[in-house]
Amino acid sequence: MADHYDTALGASTPDTITLLGHDLATDVMGTVGFGELAFWLATQRRPSPGQTRLFEAVLAALADHGFTPTAIVSRLTYLSAPDSVQGALAAGLLGGGSRFLGVTEDCGRFLHDVLATADLPEDDDGWDALALETLRVQGKPRIPGLGHHVHKNGDPRTLRLFQIAAEEGLVGPHLSLFKAIGRVHPRVLGKTLPLNGAGTCGAVLADLGLPLELLRGFALLARTAGLIGQLAEELRHPVANQIFLSVDSHTRSVAPLEE
Amino acid sequence: MADHYDTALGASTPDTITLLGHDLATDVMGTVGFGELAFWLATQRRPSPGQTRLFEAVLAALADHGFTPTAIVSRLTYLSAPDSVQGALAAGLLGGGSRFLGVTEDCGRFLHDVLATADLPEDDDGWDALALETLRVQGKPRIPGLGHHVHKNGDPRTLRLFQIAAEEGLVGPHLSLFKAIGRVHPRVLGKTLPLNGAGTCGAVLADLGLPLELLRGFALLARTAGLIGQLAEELRHPVANQIFLSVDSHTRSVAPLEE
Amino acid sequence: MADHYDTALGASTPDTITLLGHDLATDVMGTVGFGELAFWLATQRRPSPGQTRLFEAVLAALADHGFTPTAIVSRLTYLSAPDSVQGALAAGLLGGGSRFLGVTEDCGRFLHDVLATADLPEDDDGWDALALETLRVQGKPRIPGLGHHVHKNGDPRTLRLFQIAAEEGLVGPHLSLFKAIGRVHPRVLGKTLPLNGAGTCGAVLADLGLPLELLRGFALLARTAGLIGQLAEELRHPVANQIFLSVDSHTRSVAPLEE
Amino acid sequence: MADHYDTALGASTPDTITLLGHDLATDVMGTVGFGELAFWLATQRRPSPGQTRLFEAVLAALADHGFTPTAIVSRLTYLSAPDSVQGALAAGLLGGGSRFLGVTEDCGRFLHDVLATADLPEDDDGWDALALETLRVQGKPRIPGLGHHVHKNGDPRTLRLFQIAAEEGLVGPHLSLFKAIGRVHPRVLGKTLPLNGAGTCGAVLADLGLPLELLRGFALLARTAGLIGQLAEELRHPVANQIFLSVDSHTRSVAPLEE
Repeated sequence: MADHYDTALGASTPDTITLLGHDLATDVMGTVGFGELAFWLATQRRPSPGQTRLFEAVLAALADHGFTPTAIVSRLTYLSAPDSVQGALAAGLLGGGSRFLGVTEDCGRFLHDVLATADLPEDDDGWDALALETLRVQGKPRIPGLGHHVHKNGDPRTLRLFQIAAEEGLVGPHLSLFKAIGRVHPRVLGKTLPLNGAGTCGAVLADLGLPLELLRGFALLARTAGLIGQLAEELRHPVANQIFLSVDSHTRSVAPLEE
Repeated sequence: MADHYDTALGASTPDTITLLGHDLATDVMGTVGFGELAFWLATQRRPSPGQTRLFEAVLAALADHGFTPTAIVSRLTYLSAPDSVQGALAAGLLGGGSRFLGVTEDCGRFLHDVLATADLPEDDDGWDALALETLRVQGKPRIPGLGHHVHKNGDPRTLRLFQIAAEEGLVGPHLSLFKAIGRVHPRVLGKTLPLNGAGTCGAVLADLGLPLELLRGFALLARTAGLIGQLAEELRHPVANQIFLSVDSHTRSVAPLEE
Repeated sequence: MADHYDTALGASTPDTITLLGHDLATDVMGTVGFGELAFWLATQRRPSPGQTRLFEAVLAALADHGFTPTAIVSRLTYLSAPDSVQGALAAGLLGGGSRFLGVTEDCGRFLHDVLATADLPEDDDGWDALALETLRVQGKPRIPGLGHHVHKNGDPRTLRLFQIAAEEGLVGPHLSLFKAIGRVHPRVLGKTLPLNGAGTCGAVLADLGLPLELLRGFALLARTAGLIGQLAEELRHPVANQIFLSVDSHTRSVAPLEE
Repeated sequence: MADHYDTALGASTPDTITLLGHDLATDVMGTVGFGELAFWLATQRRPSPGQTRLFEAVLAALADHGFTPTAIVSRLTYLSAPDSVQGALAAGLLGGGSRFLGVTEDCGRFLHDVLATADLPEDDDGWDALALETLRVQGKPRIPGLGHHVHKNGDPRTLRLFQIAAEEGLVGPHLSLFKAIGRVHPRVLGKTLPLNGAGTCGAVLADLGLPLELLRGFALLARTAGLIGQLAEELRHPVANQIFLSVDSHTRSVAPLEE
């Protein structure tokens, strides 16, 4: 049995509150932005302004995409249980799994796994070579983050993330490899696919040193802000009941499988 | 049946992505901080730098308080189901209800209700009078946000929020009334209680014009960042299994109520 | 600090497993039905066969109502995160709040509160009198469980629950009062409303001695079985993606509130 | 876009409610037990009495194991948010993932996968041979359901499930193979391990024809009943706050990773 449960996060005594070893009131509140704080909490390492800017760009990229399943779920849950905002947010987040929000984590992890067994290239030709090898080894190429079902000619977020990372001097190996995959994949696949913005977010988060096991968590953090926006909009202009009624009115009762 | 489901949040076409009517890649990413964006999503009104700073101070105040029930719940859920980060975060958020995180929302709503039927005072004497009347009308005083079980001599976050709000010129009626309650309540109650920091957050959020029905949601947004911090720490220094074993080893099997 | 955490529920040693003080393998498995066990777990009192029959009738009444918001939510969450069945079920249950599943709990509690301050009548005339008084005292009558938006001429479940309760000799005060409300309300309200089946379930559960604070929990237990049915059907005949696409195709991007 | 969303589950018109094609009030309520109904909902095939008995034995085996992480999580969430029973249940279920409740699903799927590519043996010798081959092919044997961290000399639930299945004539290929693994594994592994009861449940559920993708769902259904029992006990004899205080009092604030 442990004698102690250690934490470096929040702590308080009757007269003080600390967070990450700093006085919360005087050193954090009013000084540390929310994106910066989220980064700091996750890594226990205060990010530089450039890291914060890039991280917040990722959060902005993932915050909301309109009436996604997670947004619909939050609104419908709020319709059913308006007494429990926490339930509506939690329900929305529970859709943040392998299919819709997963590409961020999958892409970051995939790039990490490739890099773990490779010598790091020193120039673009080197990255291209590694990317080509990666694409070939995968045989039937199922590289996370390659392709987008809507933005077939390019995901606007991808270019912007590359740009901000370059401006801040934060293009690391994950982003370099992903970028190279974007350059060379037509040679292997015979067609040009866009680099998915959510996948690029995973490359950026991995380069920023955020924990790979929790990359999906940052997509969920961004989405929490988005879902609050959805619920606020639902309060002003409710649509959840109309969505429900639309399903209800198209329901057809059929016989069970067998009797 | 509605012909359309309207939203001003995220939208995309094959070539563009917009958020809140702005081009996501060029106008939001790299430019808008995450706290600012969360505020904007909730109100559909871009906050000023001062509003953003005050809002982010609230989020910092609520992000993490160490091994709260919500933090323990997230860690235990991650222990049981490490395959589902979304489940661990959602489970933690579900503790954000009436008792632990509720004071923020309760306080904001309470102040709002008082203000809704009062003429707004013009000076501190006026606020004191309204606060005194409020305290007296409540009879058995159960004003949300008055008192704190740990910070009995004052919650450090409260003073700091008052200070930042003043610096930014954002002391509105909710905060003015709450402050006055802090000044005058000993005259009615016969003892001095601290103004709870989480309650003060509710006053601030109400003054900032955020939706009253969702004030709890901002505590949950802050807590999402905190819970990611908790899970990241759990990954590096696991304690959840020790917490479980500690409970398990103190379990005593007793007879059912009746047979 | 407690020396012990007591429980009369599950317990195990290397060689035995007990549940509610009984040997799980020999005395519970193969002998105790699932409805009976759920009742027993909640009350720590083994129900009679009649109580079990009535309780299971309530669970059947509440298990599934087709494409309700909770069912849609579960299916959409499973679509987004098929790796996490627990998330899809949890998301569905989170809609079991005040509006859709709440009437069961609200009705049971309401009847309980009325009965707590009344002398128990001894015959139908007495129940009618109490019901009339209750209806009059409520002024603007908002009695939970009175009325149904679909079954305007009578909810088939209500009659059946009355019948089963009578067959099993389990018509208690909550059901008697609710039945009387059904008889006399036209005299006060000037129109005839059906007694809602979900409300009747609340009366039955209260009569069965189940904890009032958890009446909603039994609706959720029933719904868990229903949601598994929904997910099983979704696996065989998926519709969640069509529901999503239907919403998506009717989405209209509008300008934010203000700029 | 689909013209219709089909369902064979719940449906209603103003005058009727049907479930699985039957009149809910007259043909289901009062007649169909809850375990039977859950099975029927999942398969759209009414189980025989023997199938129901075996299925309910599985649910009893999985309903509650005392202060597991899921039970602690439900109690702590109820402590924090007593206004939301649905949140407390949902939070508890979210721990039903790969580690604690996963063995039921993992075992059922594993056995299914082995059987999918094998000729079905006709006698015990044949099953032993298939089990031996399975154990050898796995190399480093990580067969789900083999071994138990507490019941090292045998899980009492396993023998009982074998017995009930035999009594009801419901020993199918999954159970036969799992039983054979229990017989022959010492020859390959050089030590005798118990067959886990939760794993045996997975074999039984697979033999009963329940959907493999949702085997975990039945463990969650059973656990929902258990969690309601936990919350009912928490209402009568609260321990969640003591668990929280025990963690709190053993918390030690340490320095962040790096500064």
